[in-house]
Amino acid sequence: MTTTVAVLGAGSWGTTFAAVLADAGCDVRLWGRDETTVAEINADRRNTRRLPGIDLPQGIHATTDVVAALADASIVVIAIPSQSARATLAPLAEHVAEGAVAVSLMKGVELGTDLRMSEVVAEALQIPAERVAVVSGPNLAREIADHQPTATVVAAPDPAVARVVADACTTAYFRPYTNADVIGVELCGAVKNVIALAVGMAQGRGFGFNTTATVITRGLVEITRLGKALGADERTFAGLAGMGDLVATCSSPLSRNHTLGKNIGRGMTLAEAVEATGGTAEGVKSCRSVLELATKTGIEMPIVEGVAAVLGDGLGVDEMARALLSRPQKDETTDTRA
Amino acid sequence: MTTTVAVLGAGSWGTTFAAVLADAGCDVRLWGRDETTVAEINADRRNTRRLPGIDLPQGIHATTDVVAALADASIVVIAIPSQSARATLAPLAEHVAEGAVAVSLMKGVELGTDLRMSEVVAEALQIPAERVAVVSGPNLAREIADHQPTATVVAAPDPAVARVVADACTTAYFRPYTNADVIGVELCGAVKNVIALAVGMAQGRGFGFNTTATVITRGLVEITRLGKALGADERTFAGLAGMGDLVATCSSPLSRNHTLGKNIGRGMTLAEAVEATGGTAEGVKSCRSVLELATKTGIEMPIVEGVAAVLGDGLGVDEMARALLSRPQKDETTDTRA
Repeated sequence: MTTTVAVLGAGSWGTTFAAVLADAGCDVRLWGRDETTVAEINADRRNTRRLPGIDLPQGIHATTDVVAALADASIVVIAIPSQSARATLAPLAEHVAEGAVAVSLMKGVELGTDLRMSEVVAEALQIPAERVAVVSGPNLAREIADHQPTATVVAAPDPAVARVVADACTTAYFRPYTNADVIGVELCGAVKNVIALAVGMAQGRGFGFNTTATVITRGLVEITRLGKALGADERTFAGLAGMGDLVATCSSPLSRNHTLGKNIGRGMTLAEAVEATGGTAEGVKSCRSVLELATKTGIEMPIVEGVAAVLGDGLGVDEMARALLSRPQKDETTDTRA
Repeated sequence: MTTTVAVLGAGSWGTTFAAVLADAGCDVRLWGRDETTVAEINADRRNTRRLPGIDLPQGIHATTDVVAALADASIVVIAIPSQSARATLAPLAEHVAEGAVAVSLMKGVELGTDLRMSEVVAEALQIPAERVAVVSGPNLAREIADHQPTATVVAAPDPAVARVVADACTTAYFRPYTNADVIGVELCGAVKNVIALAVGMAQGRGFGFNTTATVITRGLVEITRLGKALGADERTFAGLAGMGDLVATCSSPLSRNHTLGKNIGRGMTLAEAVEATGGTAEGVKSCRSVLELATKTGIEMPIVEGVAAVLGDGLGVDEMARALLSRPQKDETTDTRA
């Protein structure tokens, strides 16, 4: 039987994921607010604004009518801006089909409540947490839309729910792994942008592959430490949503966090870097909340601390590097213990 | 008291590590076979052939007399070609000072015996395994010689030995972490070159950041699985000698394994790729032995298998990618279990 899926959000990731679902054989309804985009997808199988040059598959029906998109959908995928998700989703709760599974493609933490995006989805759509999944991994949308071989993580507390979602999005170029650790997967997605800022700063300063690899590795140790304290599974952090996403984000010149960090590493102030990058980046917003979370749980996160000091207090990147290198020395295998 | 250290091997890594030791305050004797290089280091503080443009610190005394280099050295660092290490070291056993600690900077496995390099050092120099340490991490020599911030792992079965070595090489730009898991650290160094080949192949074929990050992450899962079966500590693989070195190797255009893989990904045969790369690469040699080890221990290593099939049986890179993506799907957190 064909699975009917509603995808909310026709940005680059929402459109790309809709294409993956359609290639996997699902009947996909893609909801977007912009009438021109919706019309173009239906008429030309293109989303020129967000995915120029990509031919979208048949099997995607785009619509501006969100209630029609949701009708009978057994899977509801959400790919809208994180900070307005609650307001957008709350009025839709009554239109979600009985027993449907929700899938969050969103990253970050809701400001004000500090809730993870799957928690926001569960609350706003009034779906029990057991039926909310998240998808995260080294998933630059453009490359997936290009059918480049990519793996991802589908996390849900209930393995059967994770399986349903994974089956709905498996194609010859997109390979999902399941994982029950929703907290770990969402935490990786939120904190990696802060580490990407640190890597960008080091590269902008002129440092090379050793420094980059050192910051990525020790950054992941910090995320792992925090995650374990919050009840996540250590192995998630060494996986595709942790290490995988971090490596992809820190390599791609398209990552805003990475680019903004580079501009700061080249000597710009935060304000100048935001201007040069064409807007702020997720990591700048989440840096303070991550640090607060670390302090609350009693976890050391020296790289996140360093980034916060550079962004907030105008510490120089050289001073940050010096401070990190002169910390008391440690045993490598014991210091991920929470 | 000043620590006296003998460094055997004046290649780029041996010379760089000698510079780190000297910057850390040690009295360093650097043994090289080449008289011109030795004379240049002593007269001009330069090793133009191996580290062009780098000024070496005072505190390195280079010599062609290996017995003089070893006299009274409490630490003996070995940075010579892996496959001739046993033959070079065996005649020196009687000249090593009583109670000295040996440090292997070498990577790979001895052909014929399948021994790790620290085991070869212990046997050849007749030093008990408890006094042999290894150093490994995201350590491209040239960048360290340039004083770029870098971290590394000093592994030894005895924490006191690891501490002695770590203290001898700590500088403002070089930060060692200790680790008791010698097996894990050496295994990372041997297997990462095979994964670097796979990453190169994917990039040569035109795939981008998602594929690269996916191969690195899933490659590390394979190494971890093998390591656990062989008694290593899982956390080593998520650390600087595992993930750190792998990320640095797979990013650097200077890595021969990475470059050779790229040439194959572009469509060359192995013979053509070896020719274009200017010689073979470590991963080509170790791929079969790693696979044998995996088979012997009953561990699945699909990426290593794929690389072996491409190198040995002429499988196409596209077929390899297809085969990897169509494997039975898995839960991410359970499949590192040995």
